[in-house]
Amino acid sequence: MTVSSKGTCRIDFVSIGKQVDVPPGATLLEGAQQGGLIMVSACGGLGKCGQCRVTVLKGRVSALTESESAILSQTSIDAGERLACVTRVQEDIKVDISSDALISGPRLQLGGDAPYMKPAPLVTAHQIQMQAPTLQDSRSDLLRVKEALTDVAGQSPSSADLAVIRQLSPLARENQWHLTAYLRNNELVGLAPPESSPLGVAIDLGTTKIAASLLDLSGGKELAVSGALNPQIAYGEDLISRLSHARQNPENGQTLAMLVRETIDRLIGDLITRTKTDRDRIADLCIVGNTAMTHLLLGLPVAQLTVSPYVAATSDAMDIRARDLNLTVAPGANVHFLPGIGGFVGADHVAMILASRLHRGDRLAVGIDIGTNTEIVLFHPEHRMLTAASCASGPAFEGGHIRNGMRAASGAIMSVKFTEKGLSLSTIDHADPVGICGSGIIDALAELHRWKVINPSGRLDKDNPRVRTRDKGPEILLAAADQSGRGREIVLTQNDINEVQLAKGAIKAGLETLLAATGTSIEAVREVVVAGAFGSLLDLKSVLAIGMFPHFPNASYRQVGNAAIEGAKMALISKNARRDAWNIAVHSTHLELSTYPEFNRLYALAMQFPNLDKNAATVWK
Amino acid sequence: MTVSSKGTCRIDFVSIGKQVDVPPGATLLEGAQQGGLIMVSACGGLGKCGQCRVTVLKGRVSALTESESAILSQTSIDAGERLACVTRVQEDIKVDISSDALISGPRLQLGGDAPYMKPAPLVTAHQIQMQAPTLQDSRSDLLRVKEALTDVAGQSPSSADLAVIRQLSPLARENQWHLTAYLRNNELVGLAPPESSPLGVAIDLGTTKIAASLLDLSGGKELAVSGALNPQIAYGEDLISRLSHARQNPENGQTLAMLVRETIDRLIGDLITRTKTDRDRIADLCIVGNTAMTHLLLGLPVAQLTVSPYVAATSDAMDIRARDLNLTVAPGANVHFLPGIGGFVGADHVAMILASRLHRGDRLAVGIDIGTNTEIVLFHPEHRMLTAASCASGPAFEGGHIRNGMRAASGAIMSVKFTEKGLSLSTIDHADPVGICGSGIIDALAELHRWKVINPSGRLDKDNPRVRTRDKGPEILLAAADQSGRGREIVLTQNDINEVQLAKGAIKAGLETLLAATGTSIEAVREVVVAGAFGSLLDLKSVLAIGMFPHFPNASYRQVGNAAIEGAKMALISKNARRDAWNIAVHSTHLELSTYPEFNRLYALAMQFPNLDKNAATVWK
Repeated sequence: MTVSSKGTCRIDFVSIGKQVDVPPGATLLEGAQQGGLIMVSACGGLGKCGQCRVTVLKGRVSALTESESAILSQTSIDAGERLACVTRVQEDIKVDISSDALISGPRLQLGGDAPYMKPAPLVTAHQIQMQAPTLQDSRSDLLRVKEALTDVAGQSPSSADLAVIRQLSPLARENQWHLTAYLRNNELVGLAPPESSPLGVAIDLGTTKIAASLLDLSGGKELAVSGALNPQIAYGEDLISRLSHARQNPENGQTLAMLVRETIDRLIGDLITRTKTDRDRIADLCIVGNTAMTHLLLGLPVAQLTVSPYVAATSDAMDIRARDLNLTVAPGANVHFLPGIGGFVGADHVAMILASRLHRGDRLAVGIDIGTNTEIVLFHPEHRMLTAASCASGPAFEGGHIRNGMRAASGAIMSVKFTEKGLSLSTIDHADPVGICGSGIIDALAELHRWKVINPSGRLDKDNPRVRTRDKGPEILLAAADQSGRGREIVLTQNDINEVQLAKGAIKAGLETLLAATGTSIEAVREVVVAGAFGSLLDLKSVLAIGMFPHFPNASYRQVGNAAIEGAKMALISKNARRDAWNIAVHSTHLELSTYPEFNRLYALAMQFPNLDKNAATVWK
Repeated sequence: MTVSSKGTCRIDFVSIGKQVDVPPGATLLEGAQQGGLIMVSACGGLGKCGQCRVTVLKGRVSALTESESAILSQTSIDAGERLACVTRVQEDIKVDISSDALISGPRLQLGGDAPYMKPAPLVTAHQIQMQAPTLQDSRSDLLRVKEALTDVAGQSPSSADLAVIRQLSPLARENQWHLTAYLRNNELVGLAPPESSPLGVAIDLGTTKIAASLLDLSGGKELAVSGALNPQIAYGEDLISRLSHARQNPENGQTLAMLVRETIDRLIGDLITRTKTDRDRIADLCIVGNTAMTHLLLGLPVAQLTVSPYVAATSDAMDIRARDLNLTVAPGANVHFLPGIGGFVGADHVAMILASRLHRGDRLAVGIDIGTNTEIVLFHPEHRMLTAASCASGPAFEGGHIRNGMRAASGAIMSVKFTEKGLSLSTIDHADPVGICGSGIIDALAELHRWKVINPSGRLDKDNPRVRTRDKGPEILLAAADQSGRGREIVLTQNDINEVQLAKGAIKAGLETLLAATGTSIEAVREVVVAGAFGSLLDLKSVLAIGMFPHFPNASYRQVGNAAIEGAKMALISKNARRDAWNIAVHSTHLELSTYPEFNRLYALAMQFPNLDKNAATVWK
């Protein structure tokens, strides 16, 4: 039994390249969390939802539980599949974690100099000892709180939330007039028993997944993480489908809002249960999302967002009572929404900029958040201005509009390598292939390009032995029916290639337009920050090989994973970070790409595949 | 046909002593409203609820409508009874208005020098012309509102209510980017089509009745009034019953809150319908009530209010979002709650002081708000301090704890005069007597005292021929079974007399304690202000005859009716009035009467009936 001399077991998450040391008996989920890997866990770690499947490749773990036997098929169990939340480590092990179970990529490495990880929270806690009332002194309970706060905090709150006043009278008597009071600026927003330090929740509200993190507001420590799929997916995988659904009638909008609010509240419950704390201690929250997600969560009208010129109802920073979003936390707690930039470029992009500190360096930098909408930003250090744009890169990277496309779930082809005689695939969970996801598609195109199976315009060479022709045109066979997990062939068609060209062309043309419209030469760019949970799973070599970005000859690349939630955490625990986010928004200009006269020409050119030698010269740092 | 030469008809509300001139064809309800008489009208003037019954004593009016035939009995119709909302004036008439249909007494005569009838509202309206968005300018809609407001108001709101942002995008497009914006301090609280002046609603939330008034916020003009019974009556006529019900479990509290919120929202609907305006224009509200009523409306805990030392959760001035009280008005509109003083002395007493300007004179003054709880206040002009107390005068004045007691409704004996050989009664609506209400009971006691049927201790003289003795003791027969509207005798018992002694003694002892505890001589009091809807119906001569108040030899009396709603209106339209209300609360001390050592002795003495000669000397001004 290999337990290290320090009495810990090492878990090697092989597909992620992350290793953590945990005490024997820790669950794999705890290990993943320690490593900053946010796993889907809809049931809150009770072994019931089956979302946190992992494959134990090597090493001994606790015996299969009854709930696992009930949830996992015998085939899965034979392949070493387990539920991370109930499987306990007994020695050093190797684990393969399913991408579908993973809410975000590895945590952003911020380094020790991150300015906002030093907590300066807006909500502060104060221990108060109230005077008990007598017949001679029958002043109200609230007045006693104000008096006691003046004693300890040197200030009396100018207002108190009604829901907090509702708590006050019984709580003060239960705790012998000794309470913890939470103040937000000059307002009383929560009350709790003595010595209850305030907690906060940061949420990245993604189109596909929602990640939540519980933090100690005073110390800034992360106490737990959780995640779930965005339930609005039932109404469309892409934003436009959901916005169209919401604009049809108010009830649809309410349904979409209600679904996502319920999921967020459930995630909060999960965080609370796992840390054995109380919802009333959550005194502040911060949610970041793109413009459309924020509008749907808040129940804002979306009609004007779906037609040109695509205008947000608001992109201001906002504080909304958490209860107005049906979130059960401290009664007066607010949800802080960071400001957006304009159009579809929302608060999540501001949070990404905040966390990556793109805007605080002295180098001309480009930021790219890859997704169905890809947000891009250019930072000019001389005048410290940011210019941001949104590229309609479309759903191809999520498997949409692709014949056998799928999201990054079990059985998805995630990587493709051509060999002399055929090809080698690797799939998520090592399952038999059932489709191809974004990273697999990009890999496949890079290989087709490298092996000259396509020409620079993306046309398949019908004379190439890898290409076969069917009724609908030329295509590549990735997996034969008998190799496939679904009993049918998996192919990549000429049409699929064209879809990816549209997507990658949109991003490249967007970046070129951003440079041209701001008079920036491509040589001036010194740093490229690639963000997004999807962005962190990509093989950047393939991305550059297919020409998804222009060739930046002097730039170094930084892959930062889901930076949006890191920005949300910073804003949660630091009012300085909120101020900086406001600064980012104020110093940002939104560029509507279609207004640039050259955009269409650049777009047409950007769909081409680049010169291979040129890309080979890319400095890979 | 007697229509005056000016082309108007005079309506003489005989029981109220109020005369108004209206155009021929006006309804009696419109006439009553013009005269400041707030009538119950649950159906909004549709002739359906039957609550606005009046008796036409003299003069010609419009023919009986179908709805009246359906609602009124033939006996009522023969007696001249009509519904005020559908009966139209055709010449000068005399009308008797049922006290039960009346929400408040005659409007307080404030005189031309009332300081807060000059509007200085917190909510201001601004006409804005927003810039329409283009592809080159896709800033959010809210940013456009802020920009336009900076143009016209010189300031940009620092925040905007979420519910207002929800209105913005469609409303701006429907109105070609031209809107009315309502600002409250620095917050955007409402939006409306162009040229929509803001409205406000003032509400007196009484234990028995709720009165509402719609005002033009900019001009201060009263546009409509409405009223309804407090539906919480189903859970107890007195406050203590309702508080006890609410403290049993949270659901009870929610039911009581919900009932009163629904009624207020219905009254707002009534005001809106009658003035043909829109709920979205109601941009501010002010509600006054006693401590218990406010706690029940707001859903605050009440357990601590029902046990010694009777502490309010809060008595601070507050602004609550109207939507948090389920009121449908402009989405960001607030309800302002005036501050209370302490214990059961609540915001309605502060509003009464504000409206009567008791605290702004240079005379030592006493204010008395008569009800189930009677609030009393003493104003010392030298140090401009107010001392307030609450007397548990009990339900006797409302007919409670009285053998044949009843509220002031149709058939209630409202006045009693003894004659040499018997007695003469007058009843509300001139109906056959069915019971006796507060003013009748006080009248009866004054007569019993004047005719020496009782001794100074309140004992009935069994040898007096007016007194008869039954199994339960001595009693006075007010109406024989065959004279009664309910076929049974109506009597006043020794026990009834004792109940009234307890009630009037509590008020007198409260006033004497207030004087003694503040070192004030009875001769120093120069003014006595008697307030409350009930207070304005009383015959003050009888009140003084039974010794409900101490004998103030140097005081003049002022009967001001329902001053609380007048105070609420002032606070609605003037931030200066809110500041003054805050001053009243800050300069007020709450005195818990039971803490004064002499109180019990004073109480025992105060139950006695006073020397008749002494009272006869009272200066009646």
